[in-house]
Amino acid sequence: MKKTMLAVLVLTATAAVADEGMWQPHQLPELEAVLKSKGLTIDAASIADLTRFPMNAVISLGGCTASFVSKQGLAVTNHHCAYGSIQHNSTAQNNLIEQGFLAKSLVGELPAAPGSKIFVTESVSNVTQQIKQELTPQLQGKDRFDKIDEMRKQLVAECEVTPGYRCEVYSFHGGLEYYLIKQLEIRDVRLVYAPAAGVGVFGGDIDNWMWPRHTGDYAFYRAYVGADGKPADFSADNVPFVPPSSLKVSAKGVQEGDFVMVLGYPGRTNRYNTAFEVKNQFTEILPASKTYREQTIALIKQHAPEGSEQRVKYQSILAGLANYAKNFDGMIQTYQKGGTQARKDAFDAELQRWIDAEPARKAKYKPVLLDLQKLLQAETATQQRDLILNYFGYAQLFSTSRKLYRLAQEQQKPDELRESGYQSRDLERFKAGLKRMSRSFEPAVDLEIALHFLKLYAALPKDQRLAALDQAFGLQEQTDEALLRERLTQIYQATTLTDEAERLAWVGKTPAEFLESKDPALQFAVALYDTDMQHESAAKTQAGKLSVARPKVMEAVIAFNKAQQKPVYPDANGTLRVTYGTVQGYQPKDGVTYQPFTTLKGITEKHTGVEPFNAPAAQLAAIAKGDFGGYQHPALGTVPVNFLSNVDTTGGNSGSPTLNGKAELVGLLFDGVIEGIIGNYDYDPALNRSIHVDSRYLLWQMEKVDGAGNLLSEMEIVRD
Amino acid sequence: MKKTMLAVLVLTATAAVADEGMWQPHQLPELEAVLKSKGLTIDAASIADLTRFPMNAVISLGGCTASFVSKQGLAVTNHHCAYGSIQHNSTAQNNLIEQGFLAKSLVGELPAAPGSKIFVTESVSNVTQQIKQELTPQLQGKDRFDKIDEMRKQLVAECEVTPGYRCEVYSFHGGLEYYLIKQLEIRDVRLVYAPAAGVGVFGGDIDNWMWPRHTGDYAFYRAYVGADGKPADFSADNVPFVPPSSLKVSAKGVQEGDFVMVLGYPGRTNRYNTAFEVKNQFTEILPASKTYREQTIALIKQHAPEGSEQRVKYQSILAGLANYAKNFDGMIQTYQKGGTQARKDAFDAELQRWIDAEPARKAKYKPVLLDLQKLLQAETATQQRDLILNYFGYAQLFSTSRKLYRLAQEQQKPDELRESGYQSRDLERFKAGLKRMSRSFEPAVDLEIALHFLKLYAALPKDQRLAALDQAFGLQEQTDEALLRERLTQIYQATTLTDEAERLAWVGKTPAEFLESKDPALQFAVALYDTDMQHESAAKTQAGKLSVARPKVMEAVIAFNKAQQKPVYPDANGTLRVTYGTVQGYQPKDGVTYQPFTTLKGITEKHTGVEPFNAPAAQLAAIAKGDFGGYQHPALGTVPVNFLSNVDTTGGNSGSPTLNGKAELVGLLFDGVIEGIIGNYDYDPALNRSIHVDSRYLLWQMEKVDGAGNLLSEMEIVRD
Repeated sequence: MKKTMLAVLVLTATAAVADEGMWQPHQLPELEAVLKSKGLTIDAASIADLTRFPMNAVISLGGCTASFVSKQGLAVTNHHCAYGSIQHNSTAQNNLIEQGFLAKSLVGELPAAPGSKIFVTESVSNVTQQIKQELTPQLQGKDRFDKIDEMRKQLVAECEVTPGYRCEVYSFHGGLEYYLIKQLEIRDVRLVYAPAAGVGVFGGDIDNWMWPRHTGDYAFYRAYVGADGKPADFSADNVPFVPPSSLKVSAKGVQEGDFVMVLGYPGRTNRYNTAFEVKNQFTEILPASKTYREQTIALIKQHAPEGSEQRVKYQSILAGLANYAKNFDGMIQTYQKGGTQARKDAFDAELQRWIDAEPARKAKYKPVLLDLQKLLQAETATQQRDLILNYFGYAQLFSTSRKLYRLAQEQQKPDELRESGYQSRDLERFKAGLKRMSRSFEPAVDLEIALHFLKLYAALPKDQRLAALDQAFGLQEQTDEALLRERLTQIYQATTLTDEAERLAWVGKTPAEFLESKDPALQFAVALYDTDMQHESAAKTQAGKLSVARPKVMEAVIAFNKAQQKPVYPDANGTLRVTYGTVQGYQPKDGVTYQPFTTLKGITEKHTGVEPFNAPAAQLAAIAKGDFGGYQHPALGTVPVNFLSNVDTTGGNSGSPTLNGKAELVGLLFDGVIEGIIGNYDYDPALNRSIHVDSRYLLWQMEKVDGAGNLLSEMEIVRD
Repeated sequence: MKKTMLAVLVLTATAAVADEGMWQPHQLPELEAVLKSKGLTIDAASIADLTRFPMNAVISLGGCTASFVSKQGLAVTNHHCAYGSIQHNSTAQNNLIEQGFLAKSLVGELPAAPGSKIFVTESVSNVTQQIKQELTPQLQGKDRFDKIDEMRKQLVAECEVTPGYRCEVYSFHGGLEYYLIKQLEIRDVRLVYAPAAGVGVFGGDIDNWMWPRHTGDYAFYRAYVGADGKPADFSADNVPFVPPSSLKVSAKGVQEGDFVMVLGYPGRTNRYNTAFEVKNQFTEILPASKTYREQTIALIKQHAPEGSEQRVKYQSILAGLANYAKNFDGMIQTYQKGGTQARKDAFDAELQRWIDAEPARKAKYKPVLLDLQKLLQAETATQQRDLILNYFGYAQLFSTSRKLYRLAQEQQKPDELRESGYQSRDLERFKAGLKRMSRSFEPAVDLEIALHFLKLYAALPKDQRLAALDQAFGLQEQTDEALLRERLTQIYQATTLTDEAERLAWVGKTPAEFLESKDPALQFAVALYDTDMQHESAAKTQAGKLSVARPKVMEAVIAFNKAQQKPVYPDANGTLRVTYGTVQGYQPKDGVTYQPFTTLKGITEKHTGVEPFNAPAAQLAAIAKGDFGGYQHPALGTVPVNFLSNVDTTGGNSGSPTLNGKAELVGLLFDGVIEGIIGNYDYDPALNRSIHVDSRYLLWQMEKVDGAGNLLSEMEIVRD
């Protein structure tokens, strides 16, 4: 009887904090009772093991998540995660984004965009002790940063001795723990199937982050390996990868109240930020970032007009800019209306009181709390300038020339001492970036972006300015825009970095060769180098200091939260996590309820024929025909398109498989709702909702509209 | 047992057609079983009797509805129905619209706007036979129209023999029936209480026709009569009118699913229009009307800028223009997306089939159906020109000068032969209009409106042009805008009709005096007179022809509908009707449910401090305090602000009392939702929703915010 009582108590405590939590897989056995009570039927421990089903079917695309859904390496992800690859294979004459694409057999599959990878996580090892033991108290500031960096690189290098693997050391809880993650790196990835934009991007930017939603945001890749089963470069001789396991796809789907869990790679949350950081973020950083994004969007739209070749190149960049401009705007609005700051202030005050309440606790944590506060305050001094310079990075000519010169500098050092991103292991990715630029860069547009942010920079007070940057562009106290434009025009006319072969030719050159170059973009990189290094060094010193203060404070926060029975899971950091919850709608505002499902009916309602509400004629005809093929939701009587759940997700989770209690795929996570996206800082159980493509819609569209029978027969579909 | 069976059958048939219907009070006893089953507890027959409670508490304001809520003539209506009176008493220094107004005692009450009336319907008599017996088959076209007109005037004149009454003959079902309605006309109406615009107009044009809604759209008038209890002109000696009955106000309100009924004066619906008329309306008339409204709004906003004295004058006109521009837009959108035309086409085809199915029916109705079709088609030939000339009527100088000259002409005839609107009984209302113009007219703005529509007119093909109008403004084949503007400027400079006393001085003058006048606006009226008369005569001929065809077709439609067990009630025509239904939300689109109640919480959510989302500080403080004073909805735990029901209403119903099954006032109807307003043509049970101010909100605001204790103690409030 006691055991039951205990289970009930645990359940109550957890239910009280809703379904918040992006759990590390190894934490799941602790949650077994809750998961079971919510509807999980498989063993919770099985999800904790990365080498077992279902975790070994979940893969990373680097920035997005996917999952294997066949024994021949077929992987499903979001349309927006495969967008770059669809775009890569598109031309004005054969626009695969617009028309969609389906390979009817393996030979018709198309290479994904350069640099596309599939990562299968194979192991996660706690390396905290190995790193911490090297961190003597004497190591402070930059030295401490460098030591941590050195240890990380060393662990990665040892791990990557086996060919075909990619390893990374991730810090958790701001450096309280470190884990080494080892992933199989599959580098021959091919595009198999993507529905037309009228399905995959239905609703576009207008519906982005919104409910009700009707987006068929899914696409299929296939992983290929060499004949020996090992990762290999693209080759006609390669064969489909046989994954360790794959997910069955449910044709029955979910209903309101059903248990769901999402396995994936959430990118970044800031749930444990201090009240000061949150305030600074929402009143300084985000409003400015939103403005810079909107300005960049306006510039691109102006100089790469609708329907032009240039616009095709900037489509993906525009989508990224707009996506987060809207995200930031949503967060700022919720922040201004809601109680986030008050809650953060209250939390910090309570934490303080809790720390002060016990002398030992006070002695241990009080000083470090003050340290953290000082460090965070110091960071804000030049943040507005730094933000402008970050957005100046959207001018690809200058960010590329700087990266090329940095590579030359780093390559002077032994490989293990080079900066991350410039080691031998990074070279392929580096070159892929240089190639990709050809499809997303137009000098005339790039110039306007550079000009815009240089003008913003030039309007900064004197003490914020960088002498090297002023000199490079001849910026005076008062900026003469015409002169600046003339100077930039000369640079863009004279540089050869606009040419892909020329860019690639600079990989492997020495700093001396850069110094001799007459290319003005490279001269700029050389001129800025010392300043860039000074800033980087200062940032590393700051990071080294934070690596002392932050983990200590997090230790206090964790202890405090545990004392309050609040969930303790680390902030998202791009590593594999599990989140669970139930299918449910929400109340976005007084008088309005959002239902948990949308249906085919809504597609017809929204369809105008004009992008982004341009459902394909074949789909509209199939809807009108009412042939739901057994994919309908029993109560709704039609095929559900998207559904809501309260699982706890963020960017990076895109494409994650949504599973039912039996670990069958019932959907793909692809978005969160605008009312809940402040959740990255402040989770609200009433408004935190994730949006999923319903597996029934995906199957219906494949069977009844796109004729993807070849893929359906390859997948294992659960029909009852 | 048979009786019960029958009752069930009736119930089922009616339930199947939802709660559609704007019933004539005398029809209610037929609906007794349904009404009782839905929740009516008082006797249905009692509602049929206009001289009994509750019907004799329901009053017309002419265009709006109100109801007596105290034994001292206190009447409650919508804020937007009393808007003109609030505006009339406002100055830039003492802006009652903005601040609200409350008379703490009778002496502080303010005269309503000139011409404000309260009409108490006392009797409704079927006069169909009296009119029809005069309509010999020989009477055709204009003669037939004139005969009907003569009979109507005669009946009215006989009825109005008793002083203090206003009578009107209304046609039902397109002339199939005629009813003479006799109303007590109270002409001393005073403004008692109106909340601040931040309550009464909260949400403004943005929220107009929308849900979720949070508008406190209510205001109070008081009816005054002479010491003898009879209607009298305004006088300090007048006393409050003692109404035959008054409504109790419920502090308990309604809950989801509760029975409600609305008693009021719906203006006009077109549910029985033919498919041809509907198509013409939605593809020709409404799109053009919407455009003309938007253009007029833009002109007024440009020439009477925000914050100017001129803008204050045009506030009410702007509100009216915007109200229906949005209404038309909503209807057009629903028409384009929905199945209205298909349903109308199907209905006409089924009606045809039904008529053709029986030889006697075919012989009786087929020819008249064809007649109606021809008549309706003929009407469309000049409709676009006529629409432009109608909107030219927004130029008040010219519409006023025409009316003045017309009056002079009519006054040459014996009173009983004068055109409606120009008889002795109309004179007071006529003068009130001339006075009201002073508060809603600005020559510079008026000129722009005239210029705009004359330009549109001048762009019409030659065969649509009117020689007299061309000549009056010197319009040529090609219009020279500068010349036209110059001509108009001269007219506006020279006319004296811009002066109230001058306008009034022309009432009672002879046509000869007009002919001698050098006032260019009057010269215009004289010049256009013959053309105007020709058009009117043609319109009367058409109306005379329709008065044969339409009632016959309606007879067929009614028989057909009855055969289908569809509800048969006449289209709204400004007469007293009863509609019933239940409190319920709806699904405006796929994935979204609108709840039936909004609450105080939503006011705080919407409040920005900027008009129209500027809740008064005192209200926000009261909300924050959470002192709901027993007015909260038990399940919602807070005060409901507005609620939805499926009662069947339209413009003119504004201000109507919403009653529960005991005939207690639980709300005031003030709007319909945009998704349902096509209901004027095509009722959709899923989307037809009316919006009501909740009586609990009204009482809470009065008690907790506005301190209207004097009125609360005057009203009978039902607290349990």
